[in-house]
Amino acid sequence: MPVAYSAVGFEVCHIDRPDDPRVEAYVSIRERDLVGREGRFIAEGETVLAVLLRQKLHAVESVFVLDKRLPHIAHLLQDVPATVPLYVASREVMDAVAGFPIHRGVLAVGRRREQGEAAAFLAALPERALVVGFVGLANHDNVGGIFRNAAAFGADAVLLDDTSCDPLYRKAIRVSVGGALCVPFFREASAHALVDLLTDAGFSVLALSPRGMDTLSALEPPRRAALLLGTEGPGLPDDVLARCRTVSIPMHGTFDSLNVATTSGIALHHLVSR
Amino acid sequence: MPVAYSAVGFEVCHIDRPDDPRVEAYVSIRERDLVGREGRFIAEGETVLAVLLRQKLHAVESVFVLDKRLPHIAHLLQDVPATVPLYVASREVMDAVAGFPIHRGVLAVGRRREQGEAAAFLAALPERALVVGFVGLANHDNVGGIFRNAAAFGADAVLLDDTSCDPLYRKAIRVSVGGALCVPFFREASAHALVDLLTDAGFSVLALSPRGMDTLSALEPPRRAALLLGTEGPGLPDDVLARCRTVSIPMHGTFDSLNVATTSGIALHHLVSR
Repeated sequence: MPVAYSAVGFEVCHIDRPDDPRVEAYVSIRERDLVGREGRFIAEGETVLAVLLRQKLHAVESVFVLDKRLPHIAHLLQDVPATVPLYVASREVMDAVAGFPIHRGVLAVGRRREQGEAAAFLAALPERALVVGFVGLANHDNVGGIFRNAAAFGADAVLLDDTSCDPLYRKAIRVSVGGALCVPFFREASAHALVDLLTDAGFSVLALSPRGMDTLSALEPPRRAALLLGTEGPGLPDDVLARCRTVSIPMHGTFDSLNVATTSGIALHHLVSR
Repeated sequence: MPVAYSAVGFEVCHIDRPDDPRVEAYVSIRERDLVGREGRFIAEGETVLAVLLRQKLHAVESVFVLDKRLPHIAHLLQDVPATVPLYVASREVMDAVAGFPIHRGVLAVGRRREQGEAAAFLAALPERALVVGFVGLANHDNVGGIFRNAAAFGADAVLLDDTSCDPLYRKAIRVSVGGALCVPFFREASAHALVDLLTDAGFSVLALSPRGMDTLSALEPPRRAALLLGTEGPGLPDDVLARCRTVSIPMHGTFDSLNVATTSGIALHHLVSR
């Protein structure tokens, strides 16, 4: 039963044992990421919790905070809706639940809301719109980094193929600083299905590639622009490139290497600031 | 004594015991990063080794390769100068030397060459030049990421203050994909000393800040441009900003957050492509 926590002025539920069923969604977080999360995701840390509470795309199920951190993040917790339970535990209990030390002492569980059909979503976007697509991106740091940039530059949506990793994986959310919770995303069956969708919705698909025909800095941004990114090594497949307008970022001498998240930041900045 | 390795056509030294003094520089790599490396650094992986062998700033002291990888990277090893020993060991011996599993089986030790005085170096740069400066960057991922971008966009030098981390830390080199080995860098006593040096050498110091007066996309790049970066949270100190031309990258709505390495990529791209 929730009790008033006088120091912060709102109700909390004290968790005294790691096997308390109310915090079942926080048990062995690391393993859970691997075996499936049934539409749930874990938000970690104060900054990401602030984004989670502000965004409207996904649902917040509960918040779980280290007792000692409670007074320090009271300003944030006041934004937790009254219907969302706020669990509090000691360091010992919290770490035993999560399965490893939660240094920052701030966790939350959210539940993904499906965003409907990508085709309908794209069709309903304004005449001037910006989408990011990615193909074969299995690295959580890169996917998180791209979502951080997509959120910072106001992309309307992300489309990803079936071989890219889940943007709501814990580490991807953390690296995105919550950006993965702010940008609607849709998963399509293949890179070609993704290009079909974008083309049908009137998007000009700009595929970034070291072999690209156009130079990014000289590109006049199309009104409906979709930026397509592949993995750092092999890049986008040739048959996908053949269907897109290919764009390159010229580099210096023999050092021909940019991180794919950095590349997305450079390209998004160009597209929104011209 | 080196023996010819018939399968690859050049001489190698087989290491049969982890305590062989010839591989002493590879012992307990992780701990050594923390306690000081006496001007040496560790390059890991095939891509970084290729950069190390190509660059001319620093010296290569030795190369240490897993026996099974030898045939696969023979094309690379042919570029190892005859004066540089090439050590080869089994998985068991290599891991015992390094103190942890070297998955990719490719290591090298280099020795930093000092680049002389920063003032003289800056003065000798051509009339059109580009320098990156950073203040308080203690995160190896970010420092590595910035060096990767500095190398990709042909920056002439990096200046760092005394609170920033060593670019030749193992992880920074790895994240930079070798960029940290290609761009000359100089460490100065403080952020102000750094701004003094740049100003004296005729550089326009562009400090990136969310509160910057100029917008990056509208900025006409100065002929001698120095890009100054601070940490993601607090940013550059006010008294440093007051001495610079401040530049911002406008972002969308309330999501005001770009990674500092991504920011460097966006700004460098703008400076070299206008």
